[in-house]
Amino acid sequence: MSEAAQTLDGWYALHDFRSINWAAWKAADDEERAVGLDDLRVFLQSWAETEEAKAGSTAIYSIVGQKADFVIVHLRETLEELNALETEFDKSTFADYTTKTYSYVSVVELSNYLGKGDGTDPRQKPEIMARLQPILPKSKHICFYPMNKKRELADNWYMLSMEERQNLMRSHGLIGRSYAGKVKQIITGSVGLDDWEWGVTLFSDDALQFKKLVYEMRFDEVSARYGEFGSFYVGNLLTLEGFEQLLKL
Amino acid sequence: MSEAAQTLDGWYALHDFRSINWAAWKAADDEERAVGLDDLRVFLQSWAETEEAKAGSTAIYSIVGQKADFVIVHLRETLEELNALETEFDKSTFADYTTKTYSYVSVVELSNYLGKGDGTDPRQKPEIMARLQPILPKSKHICFYPMNKKRELADNWYMLSMEERQNLMRSHGLIGRSYAGKVKQIITGSVGLDDWEWGVTLFSDDALQFKKLVYEMRFDEVSARYGEFGSFYVGNLLTLEGFEQLLKL
Amino acid sequence: MSEAAQTLDGWYALHDFRSINWAAWKAADDEERAVGLDDLRVFLQSWAETEEAKAGSTAIYSIVGQKADFVIVHLRETLEELNALETEFDKSTFADYTTKTYSYVSVVELSNYLGKGDGTDPRQKPEIMARLQPILPKSKHICFYPMNKKRELADNWYMLSMEERQNLMRSHGLIGRSYAGKVKQIITGSVGLDDWEWGVTLFSDDALQFKKLVYEMRFDEVSARYGEFGSFYVGNLLTLEGFEQLLKL
Amino acid sequence: MSEAAQTLDGWYALHDFRSINWAAWKAADDEERAVGLDDLRVFLQSWAETEEAKAGSTAIYSIVGQKADFVIVHLRETLEELNALETEFDKSTFADYTTKTYSYVSVVELSNYLGKGDGTDPRQKPEIMARLQPILPKSKHICFYPMNKKRELADNWYMLSMEERQNLMRSHGLIGRSYAGKVKQIITGSVGLDDWEWGVTLFSDDALQFKKLVYEMRFDEVSARYGEFGSFYVGNLLTLEGFEQLLKL
Amino acid sequence: MSEAAQTLDGWYALHDFRSINWAAWKAADDEERAVGLDDLRVFLQSWAETEEAKAGSTAIYSIVGQKADFVIVHLRETLEELNALETEFDKSTFADYTTKTYSYVSVVELSNYLGKGDGTDPRQKPEIMARLQPILPKSKHICFYPMNKKRELADNWYMLSMEERQNLMRSHGLIGRSYAGKVKQIITGSVGLDDWEWGVTLFSDDALQFKKLVYEMRFDEVSARYGEFGSFYVGNLLTLEGFEQLLKL
Repeated sequence: MSEAAQTLDGWYALHDFRSINWAAWKAADDEERAVGLDDLRVFLQSWAETEEAKAGSTAIYSIVGQKADFVIVHLRETLEELNALETEFDKSTFADYTTKTYSYVSVVELSNYLGKGDGTDPRQKPEIMARLQPILPKSKHICFYPMNKKRELADNWYMLSMEERQNLMRSHGLIGRSYAGKVKQIITGSVGLDDWEWGVTLFSDDALQFKKLVYEMRFDEVSARYGEFGSFYVGNLLTLEGFEQLLKL
Repeated sequence: MSEAAQTLDGWYALHDFRSINWAAWKAADDEERAVGLDDLRVFLQSWAETEEAKAGSTAIYSIVGQKADFVIVHLRETLEELNALETEFDKSTFADYTTKTYSYVSVVELSNYLGKGDGTDPRQKPEIMARLQPILPKSKHICFYPMNKKRELADNWYMLSMEERQNLMRSHGLIGRSYAGKVKQIITGSVGLDDWEWGVTLFSDDALQFKKLVYEMRFDEVSARYGEFGSFYVGNLLTLEGFEQLLKL
Repeated sequence: MSEAAQTLDGWYALHDFRSINWAAWKAADDEERAVGLDDLRVFLQSWAETEEAKAGSTAIYSIVGQKADFVIVHLRETLEELNALETEFDKSTFADYTTKTYSYVSVVELSNYLGKGDGTDPRQKPEIMARLQPILPKSKHICFYPMNKKRELADNWYMLSMEERQNLMRSHGLIGRSYAGKVKQIITGSVGLDDWEWGVTLFSDDALQFKKLVYEMRFDEVSARYGEFGSFYVGNLLTLEGFEQLLKL
Repeated sequence: MSEAAQTLDGWYALHDFRSINWAAWKAADDEERAVGLDDLRVFLQSWAETEEAKAGSTAIYSIVGQKADFVIVHLRETLEELNALETEFDKSTFADYTTKTYSYVSVVELSNYLGKGDGTDPRQKPEIMARLQPILPKSKHICFYPMNKKRELADNWYMLSMEERQNLMRSHGLIGRSYAGKVKQIITGSVGLDDWEWGVTLFSDDALQFKKLVYEMRFDEVSARYGEFGSFYVGNLLTLEGFEQLLKL
Repeated sequence: MSEAAQTLDGWYALHDFRSINWAAWKAADDEERAVGLDDLRVFLQSWAETEEAKAGSTAIYSIVGQKADFVIVHLRETLEELNALETEFDKSTFADYTTKTYSYVSVVELSNYLGKGDGTDPRQKPEIMARLQPILPKSKHICFYPMNKKRELADNWYMLSMEERQNLMRSHGLIGRSYAGKVKQIITGSVGLDDWEWGVTLFSDDALQFKKLVYEMRFDEVSARYGEFGSFYVGNLLTLEGFEQLLKL
């Protein structure tokens, strides 16, 4: 049996992808649409207050292409809070003009591959806690994809020794670090929570950096031999003004 | 031919995942919603009585994310009873406000890998029968996933000898036992009954334990080389009060 | 080129899985529902007469879980008859309250792996014809699944010699025979007719026997190395009375 | 680089699978249904005239099981004509009573594996042109399936030498020829046109011959090691009278 | 770690596949349809002006078969522009008569496999910029498909050395060049942007050339061992007149 690489876990994450039901939105009259827009404003206000209070974080992005029209990414302390956010949205009038397209449940994690620590409880360190309970950046672009480590005959990540995995992850981490300042990356673990083992959420002011980073990593053995990737979602930041613009007929 | 590891089988299980049709629920008037809520109360009352009478067990959890809004897990003596429960629900007014999203049919099982017994009929032992006909815990969280043992060229579980499988399962069982008190696990077999070979239903008051347990097991050879996993569903306990709260507009 | 194992072929089979559209059924008034139930009664009467006349056989079972609410299994002499049965059902008022969920087209077959015969035409033997044109048992439970023989690199059934396949099938057949009296099995071939190579339809008064049989076989090399399995459907016998009960609001 | 085996290409093919929307058809009144049936008659008349003029060919078959209710197979000189036929059908009143279930775009092809020719332009030979621009037989039954040649590690058709492929195809062709008079086979290529590399359309007065032919071929190395198969559709000839009968309530 | 082959990136691309909702289009009255057609005219006019201004390019093709009725291919400088085009379309009256069927997000790219350049900045060369910001040809036919380079055990493109990949790509490029004048090819990269690694969009006045080119390439080791292909879409040029004709009832 290979040694597991236990993780530090922070806030739970819900990526909630939805599309606008344009037929319903157009069929609504001005007053009905105003009620929907009010809901949206109240939500954004409430989520901003939570973020202000450092009790969670929320980011909203449009999605390019037909997979979804927008995604709401929520980070919160508990699964119950995520569930409540989801239900509250479903009950709103605004939700009547949307359809569900995809979601992902995971938890912010820091892997233990990259160093042993100095023996003190990492949860006592503010810089660690800031990474476990991160405020989502409001960069211009988002990229989300879920992924697995492969278990296919000779290419089986989980049969490697801890040392082999550490060496492979080290080189992998170097690529990531070379994009520092250009791409911010939040890794969320979802083993036991959703259909893939990890979610990767990238933020950047230049969407091309997503392509460059993921492409460069694909030649790294960790991805080349052991990476399995789900669907990729890419989009643009939605402020309240942007969302209102998006919905303006 | 490799020796089969026959199992002890207990109650049949139906995991019935549904979502709320919010459009229909909102479109209903107060009176109609009251009828729906009455149905729900009658169901919960009836299922609690069955559990009281030790003639079965039922647990209800919300599901986080878009895969479903809630799951009803029923354990009963016969397939006919499960079928009747399902039909009775479909006929109810409450069902008019829900949609079906996924289901799983299986039977509670104890594997014979972990010991031969002392020659007496295991079904005469109360501690065995309590595990074959378990009362579902009402922990804060649930995790469900279906799984197979792989049959892929060199990684073929069913071509291993009984002894090899027993050795592998022993180490696997040790991980499970190290979570005793933190995670309760119910294994249901579904070979010949549904699309995967097993269903795994975990209960815990701390959802992070699901991630830790499943992740640690993934490095164990039984999972690393031989495990194939379906969709993971995770959720929060729904009492009657919680369900009414969930549905309150 | 490996020698093909030609088969003896009997009646064509249509497994027609449907669900009840409960919303439509509830929305109908008593009179409309009475017309639907009359259709159902006429169908069952007509199919029973065909069976009586030994011109075919039909069995109806409910299905547990969300995959379907019931299945109608028809065996008939020709594809045209199956097509006509299907269309006649679609045209009925009862069909207005159902939705289609899955179907399977195949033909009852006897493999030639298990013996050469005595040189006489097997179709002249009544015991062979009874197996090629079987009256479907009315056991308490049904289990249906489609399957393939694998063609994956070193595990390629179709590249084995006839002798190797015969030896493997012999041991496989022994397991099946050990369930005689407990499980009745009808094999239908569907190469060139539907998406898998075979359909397996099992009948038993004890649904647990499906699990025991399929699980035991999975350790047999024919299944362990060469079996690929589709969805499993399991259900309970539906008599006219049972069907009426199922539909009673 | 392995030598490509270029093909002779004839008419483009569109296999257009549709189902009848029975709810809509039943909800229509006699007059509306008469308009729909008139459309159908006009289409069949028009397609027969095209066939008469040797400017294309069309065949219509019902499909057994739930995958579709019928298929229209069109062969025409250009993609534009196929597109126009499709659109014309969509615009018709009859189309209002149907739903789309599957389609396949390909082009009739003759492979060059089976002989080099005598140096003259094959398109000058009437017997070749008759095979490239075939009139679809009006046999009692049809069978359609798409397929690929596998590219999986050691089983990679496209890495074989031309000579190896020719030898394998020769034995394959012999099986096909042994069904001459019983099964007529039209191969259409779809590399670059649709999701599989080829479509195979078989015609026979005895549907069992489809099963025998495809099953026998499966033991041939070309299929056993290199064949990948999609969904199989099987059905019965639909004349105008048969179609009217099918639609008669 | 294998050296990544970084790319030159140009305009972002959105392939937006849609179908016509014929039921809605037929149900509309003449005036409503006129409004829809006006929208279409305004869009085409606006996109032509963008192309005129060399600020992007747009092409519209019908699609043969049921996968879609038409595709709009947009090339623009930014993801925000693509998102705006998509939303503007969704808001239009014409969109009310269409449904979404598939989309693809990518960016025009030139690989660096085929030569090192002379040290000067390639983005200063007009011939390079013309390929990075191409005006889409208005050929008679289009072919689109997404693809990956395989990572499967011994057939792992990303584990090859840069030199091996360069040698393989050189032979691959030769095939492409032999179709010069017959097929125009635009490669768009989508690593980190959509579900496959590349999109390939081919243009030709003779649709058979798509089949010949893709088939010939399939025998080339780059495709034979390392190519994985998604769905293929093929279609015919849609001018405004053609689109109006398509929609004329």
